[in-house]
Amino acid sequence: MNHFFDVDDIGSVELALARARSIKAHPRKGYTEGDRTSIGLLFFNPSLRTRLSSQRAAQNLRMDVVVIDVGSESWKLEFSDGTIMNGASAEHIKEAAGVMGAYFDFLAIRAFASLEDRDLDYAEPVLTAFMKYAGVPIINMESSTGHPLQAFADLITINEFKKTERPKVVLSWAPHPRALPHAVANSFAQWMNRASVDLIITHPEGYELDPKFVGSAQVQTNQSLAFEGADFIYAKNWSSYQDYGQVLYQDSSWMINQEKMELTNQAYFMHCLPVRRNMIVSDQVIDSPNSLVIQQAANRVISMQTVLSMLLEQKSSE
Amino acid sequence: MNHFFDVDDIGSVELALARARSIKAHPRKGYTEGDRTSIGLLFFNPSLRTRLSSQRAAQNLRMDVVVIDVGSESWKLEFSDGTIMNGASAEHIKEAAGVMGAYFDFLAIRAFASLEDRDLDYAEPVLTAFMKYAGVPIINMESSTGHPLQAFADLITINEFKKTERPKVVLSWAPHPRALPHAVANSFAQWMNRASVDLIITHPEGYELDPKFVGSAQVQTNQSLAFEGADFIYAKNWSSYQDYGQVLYQDSSWMINQEKMELTNQAYFMHCLPVRRNMIVSDQVIDSPNSLVIQQAANRVISMQTVLSMLLEQKSSE
Amino acid sequence: MNHFFDVDDIGSVELALARARSIKAHPRKGYTEGDRTSIGLLFFNPSLRTRLSSQRAAQNLRMDVVVIDVGSESWKLEFSDGTIMNGASAEHIKEAAGVMGAYFDFLAIRAFASLEDRDLDYAEPVLTAFMKYAGVPIINMESSTGHPLQAFADLITINEFKKTERPKVVLSWAPHPRALPHAVANSFAQWMNRASVDLIITHPEGYELDPKFVGSAQVQTNQSLAFEGADFIYAKNWSSYQDYGQVLYQDSSWMINQEKMELTNQAYFMHCLPVRRNMIVSDQVIDSPNSLVIQQAANRVISMQTVLSMLLEQKSSE
Repeated sequence: MNHFFDVDDIGSVELALARARSIKAHPRKGYTEGDRTSIGLLFFNPSLRTRLSSQRAAQNLRMDVVVIDVGSESWKLEFSDGTIMNGASAEHIKEAAGVMGAYFDFLAIRAFASLEDRDLDYAEPVLTAFMKYAGVPIINMESSTGHPLQAFADLITINEFKKTERPKVVLSWAPHPRALPHAVANSFAQWMNRASVDLIITHPEGYELDPKFVGSAQVQTNQSLAFEGADFIYAKNWSSYQDYGQVLYQDSSWMINQEKMELTNQAYFMHCLPVRRNMIVSDQVIDSPNSLVIQQAANRVISMQTVLSMLLEQKSSE
Repeated sequence: MNHFFDVDDIGSVELALARARSIKAHPRKGYTEGDRTSIGLLFFNPSLRTRLSSQRAAQNLRMDVVVIDVGSESWKLEFSDGTIMNGASAEHIKEAAGVMGAYFDFLAIRAFASLEDRDLDYAEPVLTAFMKYAGVPIINMESSTGHPLQAFADLITINEFKKTERPKVVLSWAPHPRALPHAVANSFAQWMNRASVDLIITHPEGYELDPKFVGSAQVQTNQSLAFEGADFIYAKNWSSYQDYGQVLYQDSSWMINQEKMELTNQAYFMHCLPVRRNMIVSDQVIDSPNSLVIQQAANRVISMQTVLSMLLEQKSSE
Repeated sequence: MNHFFDVDDIGSVELALARARSIKAHPRKGYTEGDRTSIGLLFFNPSLRTRLSSQRAAQNLRMDVVVIDVGSESWKLEFSDGTIMNGASAEHIKEAAGVMGAYFDFLAIRAFASLEDRDLDYAEPVLTAFMKYAGVPIINMESSTGHPLQAFADLITINEFKKTERPKVVLSWAPHPRALPHAVANSFAQWMNRASVDLIITHPEGYELDPKFVGSAQVQTNQSLAFEGADFIYAKNWSSYQDYGQVLYQDSSWMINQEKMELTNQAYFMHCLPVRRNMIVSDQVIDSPNSLVIQQAANRVISMQTVLSMLLEQKSSE
């Protein structure tokens, strides 16, 4: 892969899973291929899990890692050509990306959706510009439309816990007080479409995701029907795609609780965290032995380390 | 020790001091037992000395170290069970601690007292929750009630400079414009109670510390009497414990000056820094050859490195 | 050199350039002399290039590196002797510098000019105090009056691209919406004065630099005349030195454009970045193959690594 932007860059999902298993068995032994290579982790938005797991993955590979917090406010980048830069933007993306590409062998970038302009967000201006101007492989640490390192970690987790060859996986919308991006839901759907699972997406009307990501998943607006016989329940809130960035519905009837989990095939509960308890999911469900939220988070190190090891292999064969 | 929360976790203070001496002799040679292990340094409050010395200690041991600045404002954690998290708190301590414990072999945490609610502060909600939910050893980098890495560094310093087998050590309250926590004073008293020293605590009336930390120390409200024959003067401000978090007294008559130092047995002057000159201590005293403030700060690397080497030893014997 | 404050500390510029060439040839092979040494990078002001390139240089040498962001606001230091510190300053420079010197083998510091008080800025209070009190070598990562790591990187770049033994180098003032310090212009002039180049400085009247830095450079207020036959055009804005810190002139007629570049000897275009496009320089010029801005930024790793390797050599021979 040239970059790790989305699932299309990983090649065979099954081979990537096999590699992840092997890394997880010995995450810090024998994997020193990153020695004397460097990665910059560039955050335009806050991060906890991604920031920590990405550093840990790079350290496990003995890469030199530098974290760069720019904030979406503190370092205004200019993306347009021809602008007279006499305003707030102090640097053009061409120089910003070019310089960072000169300092690092790899750049990983987080840049959230604005949730204001759908066309702009879905054009992925930040990641696209870095891929164009940095001259080094770019890794998506959550962009406007996708969070593939999360989805890969989720798939690793499902693979570890599945009891049938082809589990039934339900991605369920759940209520949240604030408007959230689509990135996690999009990528989860996209990766599940490539994996050996049956994917059902359930949400209230008005919360349809971009069909490009939904793929061949079954969509169901009756949550109870969707849950029947499920092996994994993946909860996530997202704002509307049609009525872009809006919160249409906050009814707690969509919260994941024990009653609903009993409709399933003793399903595992999943969420990418951070999670608002008793909004998204009841304490009873997330505190149960079937909750995999910590395991998912732990696998964020493994998904990043797997991607980095693939990029390092590609680099050393250049 | 399972955790390093306070002096009770260190075992024999004399053995710990011996280990510290040995580490200080060769802080960067032969101590590579931390290679391929990781530590997260989690700061809910600002830090300079603790932040730097903890990183240096971990680097000396070749540990992979990640600094995590959360601030008490930016990442509101929920500590109560059963709450419907529809407000400011975006994550529950159960997940926050569980995830970080999944990423690191050790977690070191700084979380100051609020100085608003004594019962809450003295229950140590943050450190206690991490000890309960993280699943890895927790190291106290200054909590509501204690700062054991500072106290250990102070004891190392006293041990290096003492001229008699059992020196007379005076912990003296001194004036400061703002309300400060009790953590440094509490831990200093607690560690001195375990060491081969005679401890006298002197402060204006109303500044009595929690008896649990005072232990068998002699308490004296006449500063001049306390200073007579002292070998070490340890200055520190703290707010009231009884009238919790209040500044009762700012009279500069409690400042440590040369006149008072002349009552002592040519005592060394100590302070944990940062120090406000000519409030806590006169220039003349802190600039004198008997001032140990830089040596104390330097020994913060040694106290942390000693604690980490003990935790690493414990881990490798598991 | 005891410190790396300005060009006077580097010794022979030609020898430094030779060392830089050798490092650039193999920046990460065989240069492990920094192993088990440490450097603190202390930022009183924001930084992107300096922050990243300094970390990369130290990592290439296998030094343990710690970044310390203090901000000019968050950690008020007291510089005066005898002050009663009952106000905003929480720590005196004597302790701050002494402690950091105790933690690191080297300290690199960024502290910008205030642009309010020329005498104060040109006395370099922050760097001077650290050199006095830290007890370890201090490296200038841009001070009030100089930015020698940038100038050294610029000289490395000129050396790589020059087509004649003694190229004609023009430092040209260019317009900018905000008041900027003199550090980059001062150091560029100072280093060029030591190098095998003919230096011309061109700026509107009122923008004369401190003669101490101008040295034997030719000064020319007619930009077009200055550009004739130039091999390198180095653009930079600075505020007035005489009318200290003021923006006297913003006329876009001083912008570097293609028309002006055609007066030169097919000159290369240089700028230290970040650059405001179509204020300082037109898109056409900075996007042309003759633009060296990314190469200059890349050489910031090399200039820092060269300085560090000289300091490490000095340290190991002590």
